[in-house]
Amino acid sequence: MYRDRIRHPSLFGKVVSAEEAASLIKDGMTVGMSGFTRSGEAKAVPFALAERAKTDPLKITLLTGASLGNDLDKTLVEAGVLARRLPFQADPALRKAINRGEVMFIDQHLSETVEMLRTRQLGPIDVAVVEAVAITEDGGIIPTTSVGNSATFAILAEKVIIEINLSQPVELEGLHDIYIPTRRPFREPIPIVACESRVGLPFIPIDPSKIAAIVVTEKKDSAATVAPPDADTRAIAGHLIEFLRHEVSLGRLSNTLQPLQAGIGSIANAVLHGLIESPFHSLKMYSEVLQDSTFDLFDAGKLLFASGSSITLSEEKYRAVLPNLPSYKNRILLRPQEISNHPEIIRRLGLIGINTALEFDLYGNVNSTHVGGTMMMNGIGGSGDFARNCYLSVFVTKSIAKNGAISSVVPMVSHVDHTEHDVDILITEIGLADLRGLAPRERAKVVIDNCVHPAYRDQLADYYRRALTRGGHTPHLIEEAFSWHVRAAKTGSMREAVAAD
Amino acid sequence: MYRDRIRHPSLFGKVVSAEEAASLIKDGMTVGMSGFTRSGEAKAVPFALAERAKTDPLKITLLTGASLGNDLDKTLVEAGVLARRLPFQADPALRKAINRGEVMFIDQHLSETVEMLRTRQLGPIDVAVVEAVAITEDGGIIPTTSVGNSATFAILAEKVIIEINLSQPVELEGLHDIYIPTRRPFREPIPIVACESRVGLPFIPIDPSKIAAIVVTEKKDSAATVAPPDADTRAIAGHLIEFLRHEVSLGRLSNTLQPLQAGIGSIANAVLHGLIESPFHSLKMYSEVLQDSTFDLFDAGKLLFASGSSITLSEEKYRAVLPNLPSYKNRILLRPQEISNHPEIIRRLGLIGINTALEFDLYGNVNSTHVGGTMMMNGIGGSGDFARNCYLSVFVTKSIAKNGAISSVVPMVSHVDHTEHDVDILITEIGLADLRGLAPRERAKVVIDNCVHPAYRDQLADYYRRALTRGGHTPHLIEEAFSWHVRAAKTGSMREAVAAD
Repeated sequence: MYRDRIRHPSLFGKVVSAEEAASLIKDGMTVGMSGFTRSGEAKAVPFALAERAKTDPLKITLLTGASLGNDLDKTLVEAGVLARRLPFQADPALRKAINRGEVMFIDQHLSETVEMLRTRQLGPIDVAVVEAVAITEDGGIIPTTSVGNSATFAILAEKVIIEINLSQPVELEGLHDIYIPTRRPFREPIPIVACESRVGLPFIPIDPSKIAAIVVTEKKDSAATVAPPDADTRAIAGHLIEFLRHEVSLGRLSNTLQPLQAGIGSIANAVLHGLIESPFHSLKMYSEVLQDSTFDLFDAGKLLFASGSSITLSEEKYRAVLPNLPSYKNRILLRPQEISNHPEIIRRLGLIGINTALEFDLYGNVNSTHVGGTMMMNGIGGSGDFARNCYLSVFVTKSIAKNGAISSVVPMVSHVDHTEHDVDILITEIGLADLRGLAPRERAKVVIDNCVHPAYRDQLADYYRRALTRGGHTPHLIEEAFSWHVRAAKTGSMREAVAAD
Repeated sequence: MYRDRIRHPSLFGKVVSAEEAASLIKDGMTVGMSGFTRSGEAKAVPFALAERAKTDPLKITLLTGASLGNDLDKTLVEAGVLARRLPFQADPALRKAINRGEVMFIDQHLSETVEMLRTRQLGPIDVAVVEAVAITEDGGIIPTTSVGNSATFAILAEKVIIEINLSQPVELEGLHDIYIPTRRPFREPIPIVACESRVGLPFIPIDPSKIAAIVVTEKKDSAATVAPPDADTRAIAGHLIEFLRHEVSLGRLSNTLQPLQAGIGSIANAVLHGLIESPFHSLKMYSEVLQDSTFDLFDAGKLLFASGSSITLSEEKYRAVLPNLPSYKNRILLRPQEISNHPEIIRRLGLIGINTALEFDLYGNVNSTHVGGTMMMNGIGGSGDFARNCYLSVFVTKSIAKNGAISSVVPMVSHVDHTEHDVDILITEIGLADLRGLAPRERAKVVIDNCVHPAYRDQLADYYRRALTRGGHTPHLIEEAFSWHVRAAKTGSMREAVAAD
């Protein structure tokens, strides 16, 4: 059954059970696993590892591309296997363990992890576990629905475990473009000059003698849990499209725009959806994850090409797309996340980057990660790679959360992931603030006028008015800058008590 | 006298007085002027403009490369000429006007300003004023001691004013490498693969018909005001060199290190000086500004090549270097700041970036710009371009300021310019914290153990201990995070009152 997937005959003898493969992983090891935005993760060996830990406790450092599906992080953390975790996660159980200080989480720009491994500032990787569609005649590994960091993990690891997943269609073969930057000090320019530039190999090239075990699986990727557009996210999309139309009218953009990047999640997905009804056409994407909206844009005839590091779809969309992969194949590429998120390419192509903020402040600083300045949600992910280097850096969020108890627009963000220098456009359902070329005092005005929810507008304007009396390039009442967060922690709401009259 | 400097004969007739040239600049215009780290700035036209403003008030938006010498920003701000200023400044009088809200200052990553101009997100530039050594037979402009943003200003401006400075030696000709990225969507990789890669022209290529006026000057560049190394900066240099030796012993670096970048200022200069007595050799620099230490390293036989965007020296060093330019010429290149600071090149070459922090916090976030979270000092400059994309991001500062009234190591920085994701190594005279691969709680421990001044160690450890009781990935007492800054504002010192006993 799986023999057509293992085309290097000497490797047949490497096929073992998940338990046997997992036994290669020892206490204290650093393990690199495939998986990016809930897709293409190893699905058998890590579960076997968690099972084994029940009787044979062990701790590992786990590196992946990004988040994992199939409750894998939950399973591993509950089995007590995770000592250290990087560079991203999005699991509620793991998040709690991180916030309790039980798992050391190293939150990194997604393009940087493998650079640090390559220069031995992290690692070494003892074992890599990579999900594959097949192994080629030469021992090359064909990844499945994500590339993430798998290529460099496999190249650098001492031992490689391959999970051949029979539920992943063989039509994924040919979709990947594996390019690994040359070594310093002899590194060459990365030759990508367009979203569709194919510059690498369709498989991960490793010495087959490093393949220590092969496990055959059939478990599917988890479906995405993206919420459908609602009134607020449609309003956000509307503000962005109106802004882009205005940019076109000024001659700064054409109706084909610049290549698009969109973060994962419901708001970014809704924004891309909004483009279906827009006047823009012949669009291209150079992004991390290809979501439902990517394929909806293809089907609507709006999108010419999409480059990403993974495909993550809803259950319904998986059913529609996977059998029809050949029809999308010449319009899609999956790259290592080092390349999908590489500053060199993002700057060269001039992307329009759309990412989600947890909160932003008067001056355009963005918090993407920490609730109340302390509690980690998921991690910075690729948002910094894109926001810093793109042509236009857009951050989106609903203006309030928790039924209005929390304002996403605050005097000062309680944690900074993106500084004012890296934020061009802020959008909430209320409106859009164009911060380009504005000094902090000018930024404050457009944020108050355009983005904050009416329930918080007076409160924010009052803070700013009083901060102005102190002066400064970036006026603040430093002793009161986090008073909204302190109030929320104490009373459950950022709202000031209104005097009864 | 100046005829050998104006080699395009049709341009002789353009030579006018500074006053006449300045009359091309009208109220409300956007003006791009040469000048980067106090060198190569236009020295006649802006002064004539300030003089004129006494009787004929006008306001302009002034863009430069970075800071200006000859008290130019002071003169312009005191004449009331500056409405808007970007992307950097370092002038006490201008700083005060910015902090009073009288001048709108747009603080930008130094590599980004011309990208925004090129895509018309800023601008347009009405007039460019560029200091030059000479104008070539074809009308090409040969810059002087800095390139900065001059090339793109001249290319994009409607009118160009050239200041031919006779005090700038003609030997500067041939030192410049002017490369302008091709237009999107057809942008090609920037072909620089080593510090010494020469990829452009030795002059700024513009249509000579755009040259509206030529002014002949003789005023010299201002000398740098870098303080000589002291015990603290020597200790900082010592910690860095010890760390780098350790990296070599681990096989992560060789004794030729990686190309070096150092921010401007006394500490970075002292750190470079420290390399003279180090075991490292055959070094290269890919930096913004070539300072005294650069030439000392050349003279000590330690440095093979230095690429920058300007030369800024002490008076003594100017006297030594300028007459001997030919002997350094094949070892130096001056590039546009877009290229000296380009993320593509910084990442490709894998720089060791050494920049100065105003303050940093428990978790490795760095404030480079704002005193007390509100008052602008100079601006972020190129520190973000380098810190984000280099191989190793080092920030240095003395552990205390104002005779100990201020700690440079605080619970939470009052303004974030560089997030924890972009900071690898922190050094004070006390010691060095290696933050690579560490989670926030681990970072806090090494910062407390290694960097904070003994006078503040217990106070910082106490904050952290109490923050830990709240939990979180990044533990903070959010209501107390700025208490040190609040105390300093009220009492003049961050020190807690010690109970009398």
